[in-house]
Amino acid sequence: MGSSKAQFTLHTHVTCPAAFKVAHVLSLLGLEYEPIYFDSKRISREEKLKWFTALNPNGRSPALIDHTQNDHVVWESTAILLYLVTLYDPEHKLYPKDVFEQSKVNQWMMLQASGQGPTMGQAFWFGYWHHEVLPSAYKRFVDENKRILAVLEKWLMERKWLVGEKMTVADVSYLSWYEEAYWVDADLEEEFPAVHKWLESMKALPEIVAGSKKLWERDDYKHDQAS
Amino acid sequence: MGSSKAQFTLHTHVTCPAAFKVAHVLSLLGLEYEPIYFDSKRISREEKLKWFTALNPNGRSPALIDHTQNDHVVWESTAILLYLVTLYDPEHKLYPKDVFEQSKVNQWMMLQASGQGPTMGQAFWFGYWHHEVLPSAYKRFVDENKRILAVLEKWLMERKWLVGEKMTVADVSYLSWYEEAYWVDADLEEEFPAVHKWLESMKALPEIVAGSKKLWERDDYKHDQAS
Repeated sequence: MGSSKAQFTLHTHVTCPAAFKVAHVLSLLGLEYEPIYFDSKRISREEKLKWFTALNPNGRSPALIDHTQNDHVVWESTAILLYLVTLYDPEHKLYPKDVFEQSKVNQWMMLQASGQGPTMGQAFWFGYWHHEVLPSAYKRFVDENKRILAVLEKWLMERKWLVGEKMTVADVSYLSWYEEAYWVDADLEEEFPAVHKWLESMKALPEIVAGSKKLWERDDYKHDQAS
Repeated sequence: MGSSKAQFTLHTHVTCPAAFKVAHVLSLLGLEYEPIYFDSKRISREEKLKWFTALNPNGRSPALIDHTQNDHVVWESTAILLYLVTLYDPEHKLYPKDVFEQSKVNQWMMLQASGQGPTMGQAFWFGYWHHEVLPSAYKRFVDENKRILAVLEKWLMERKWLVGEKMTVADVSYLSWYEEAYWVDADLEEEFPAVHKWLESMKALPEIVAGSKKLWERDDYKHDQAS
């Protein structure tokens, strides 16, 4: 891994929405990165944990290494986005220059990080993975997901982007989780048309397509799926 | 409210941990603010929602108004902290100057915002408020809370503060939720002594004491409690 020629290494587990969020932003900023799946490492769970917690004491995906900055490591996807726009967005393509506008981007980005992400994560957990079927727990998170979607719907009915006149990291941050919304009983096209339109406009961007593709098409992932 | 003489107005509901987090940081930076509880407004729930969503479309506590900046509004507590340290911490008392150190503060602050806060919130919900008793749902969040506490314990056994040699907004951000940890089956003093010591060192600071006191001792809150 130390021999990677790309500027960044993105460590993630397969299908981690937070890692797609980072991949999309890297791609939009034109930055070169190599994604590494730690799922596919041929080592024990215990070894993996030891190896990965040396990068991130919290042990959760994703973590980004910047090889041009003495291998500086950043974890937590929202902290990674802030790092990237601070250092690598001099033209303010995805993050405004003005601090008041920045605070607006930050607040929407924080609603994604502390609201949308954890809520959808728990909806998936109680919908698919919990050892006991708990309909009222599942419903709690499905409903909260729709409440947040309704907030976005109302906001986006009157504007194209969350803040200002163009796409920012705040918009991009919502995309990857909402790609999975259908699986937790939210039909965006039907119930939240303005949100649907907003997401579709981002999904059509070549940089977003390339960012997703790069994560999905990793050789080690395909190898693992086949094995 | 427009006649407030303090620089800031902090809108919150009673006992909102995220609002205490903001109050602590305002107090540590020596900034003057007036807390307003929207619980105590003598208006209907519908009117409250309409009034508050004009400030924050997501309708959740807290929201901060900066009267010296054309009544600029910021919501989401972590976005508020970033706003405050960006504009009102020129001596870098709570936020480092160096962007690499900033990224470290941001990542720990994000673990609080997307991990500790939502996890403890759900532990409370399933422990005390959900209409059905769901022990395995409650256990999920109690266990995740302890997992995060164990990450912090290990980290703080070797250092006094999360990042660098002094307290930052990252440290302060964990305090208010952990004041309630005992109620969701985490005995910090017994199980997580390094975390306990860290929190006690912050709780002893006069600015933290003053920040908490200011929120608890609001006249309108006391009035509501008595009525």
